[in-house]
Amino acid sequence: MTGPEPASGDRQGTLLVVNCGSSTLKLALFDLRLHKIASVLAEKLEQFQATAHIQGDPAPVPLPSHASHRQALEAVIQALFERGWLTQAPVAIGHRVVHGGERFRQAVRIDDRTREAIADCASLAPLHNPVNLAGIDSTRSLFPGVPQIAVFDTAFHQTLPPRAFLYALPQRFYRQWGVRRYGFHGTSHAFMLTETARLLGQLPEQTSLISAHLGNGCSIAAIDHGHSVDTSMGLTPLEGLVMGSRSGDVDPGLFDFLKTKGIGQDELHRILNEQSGLLGLSGQSNDMRTLCELADQGHEASATAIDVFCFRLARYIGAMMASLRRLDALVFTGGIGENSARIRRQTLASLGLLGFAVDPERNSAHGRQSHGHIESGASRFPVLVIATDEERVIAGESLRLATPHT
Amino acid sequence: MTGPEPASGDRQGTLLVVNCGSSTLKLALFDLRLHKIASVLAEKLEQFQATAHIQGDPAPVPLPSHASHRQALEAVIQALFERGWLTQAPVAIGHRVVHGGERFRQAVRIDDRTREAIADCASLAPLHNPVNLAGIDSTRSLFPGVPQIAVFDTAFHQTLPPRAFLYALPQRFYRQWGVRRYGFHGTSHAFMLTETARLLGQLPEQTSLISAHLGNGCSIAAIDHGHSVDTSMGLTPLEGLVMGSRSGDVDPGLFDFLKTKGIGQDELHRILNEQSGLLGLSGQSNDMRTLCELADQGHEASATAIDVFCFRLARYIGAMMASLRRLDALVFTGGIGENSARIRRQTLASLGLLGFAVDPERNSAHGRQSHGHIESGASRFPVLVIATDEERVIAGESLRLATPHT
Repeated sequence: MTGPEPASGDRQGTLLVVNCGSSTLKLALFDLRLHKIASVLAEKLEQFQATAHIQGDPAPVPLPSHASHRQALEAVIQALFERGWLTQAPVAIGHRVVHGGERFRQAVRIDDRTREAIADCASLAPLHNPVNLAGIDSTRSLFPGVPQIAVFDTAFHQTLPPRAFLYALPQRFYRQWGVRRYGFHGTSHAFMLTETARLLGQLPEQTSLISAHLGNGCSIAAIDHGHSVDTSMGLTPLEGLVMGSRSGDVDPGLFDFLKTKGIGQDELHRILNEQSGLLGLSGQSNDMRTLCELADQGHEASATAIDVFCFRLARYIGAMMASLRRLDALVFTGGIGENSARIRRQTLASLGLLGFAVDPERNSAHGRQSHGHIESGASRFPVLVIATDEERVIAGESLRLATPHT
Repeated sequence: MTGPEPASGDRQGTLLVVNCGSSTLKLALFDLRLHKIASVLAEKLEQFQATAHIQGDPAPVPLPSHASHRQALEAVIQALFERGWLTQAPVAIGHRVVHGGERFRQAVRIDDRTREAIADCASLAPLHNPVNLAGIDSTRSLFPGVPQIAVFDTAFHQTLPPRAFLYALPQRFYRQWGVRRYGFHGTSHAFMLTETARLLGQLPEQTSLISAHLGNGCSIAAIDHGHSVDTSMGLTPLEGLVMGSRSGDVDPGLFDFLKTKGIGQDELHRILNEQSGLLGLSGQSNDMRTLCELADQGHEASATAIDVFCFRLARYIGAMMASLRRLDALVFTGGIGENSARIRRQTLASLGLLGFAVDPERNSAHGRQSHGHIESGASRFPVLVIATDEERVIAGESLRLATPHT
């Protein structure tokens, strides 16, 4: 296959969503009704075997060896034109930006001033903001006249009150260096808010929920009358829930203890980010589907990894309730949250005292692409499964901000 | 005053309780009905200005400059004899030992084997177990025939299930080095269990509670049918709640971030233990009474420190509920928990959704030396204030284990 079916939306215009990870590049193309037209994944950037593929197109996009984010972006855009996915410049380009610090409370049009402010936040996310900026700079030079929009992972959580965002550290850490809880996955948690409100037939600003985003990264948020008031990720995306290969919470005394065992700070930081979480506990995999299969086959460490994951999540659901005066719904989303009835069931099994009860049949029936209730009649609170779609939210924000007066 | 009133209990025999901290030594003398006869505090050990005082006796106990724990213990015991508090060797000597690892699930008589096992746990508590051992060795040579008992801060929490005691770390950390949640303040939490059962007129093994020990160190425990099943302190006493000068939970990414600001691991460890918590947030004091006064006078940072303290506590109360099937009581104890109606009120104000409601009058009426209910009629769960007395528990355990056949 060398080209698509005539691109339905392209004739009216497209929205391009750019998500630069530390060694990956994800592109998504939407029409103006926010239907996805195409998506692209480039992996192993800056490495020998850098690759890029347009979904559904078997021919890889040719990349130079050790392709940078900029080189990959240019090659992919060129391929999208050559193969007929794009016939004109996009109407707007939306960029996922990981860290907006305290500067950005919502998505913004990118100009020179906002670009500098994003660069200023790089010390808070040294692995992410610089590659996000590389993506922004590339598309600005490729499409000079096109509105570019930055959508921040942190922005939705800027409504946290000080009691929730301050660590119990010397004041100067916050004042001088911005050490505080920022929270991440804001785009997904904000989407859970609007979808929950829609499902329950109420206004977002009247809606209070607990949103559990369980993907490769995992975080939970307490949303009170439409505002994020607490969340599990902190200064960095390492804190909180157990994740695929990230530890989430540990005793801060761990650093001192492991030093006596010959494990230095840099090594431990790498271990906590790359060799911990489900992968570390199971010794097998960071993938929840694989662990559920292994556990079913009697692999004990995989069952233990699942136990710890669900228990820590249940603990955090209880913790989030301290920030809410009412609770309209507990919501599960993300790859694990949407697809694993087992994880939802096991987590909810710990929450009887807190008033949650699951209906096994409803729970089994819900997964990706379905929205719905899974609580039983005995539950004090609704429990929902909602599929997240961060790219679509970014596309929608980009369209909104690119055409502010219409 | 050079001697006590005729020591009521000494004629039948006494129990000596020894608590060696990193630079302190606390001794308490009980009669066999567990009434306290005398207590001693030695401070600034190993330092130039080492001092020791018997409570109520204005004459200090003379100590050599830079007195070690052993030297201080010997001087204090000699003074207790000389000044008439002791007339014969104690019936039993109980030692507070901070870390019992996975080896000790309850208090034990100390013999050469158990002494070695306590020494083996020293890598888990390098600041505490060695001085605890110094105390043990000193009293063993001072009173060779007297039964010596070790009572561990960690023992009560050895019933935690793996889902609660495992961190999401590579398996080898637990297998090779015992990296896991141990929990501390076990003596106090165990005392809350027996006192709560007594107050409610039920058996400890039928009693489920959440025990919040709020002193200079702070921890919380979920106790299910008499067994500790979750707690906030972890591998070390640094994790969990906000404390006087300890941070409690922080993002583990903090270490990496602060390294970029020139703060190394050792310095950060010291800051997290000594300059954080209430002291760090307020910039003023690690003492809750002082902070409450300052907050009343309009000192904003002190009010913020109190806010963060209470919010983190409320979060943990919710988290503990994920481990319980029923809840007979939420219990406040420790210096802050017993004395500060304000802290209890502010914490419970966040817990309406979880079913707690406080009665302002009952709350104000309860403090140290009083046991009692503070919940209102609207509360789903009883809320109690109970004065803790770890020394008395250690004395009781020592008496019990010194006379196992009576």
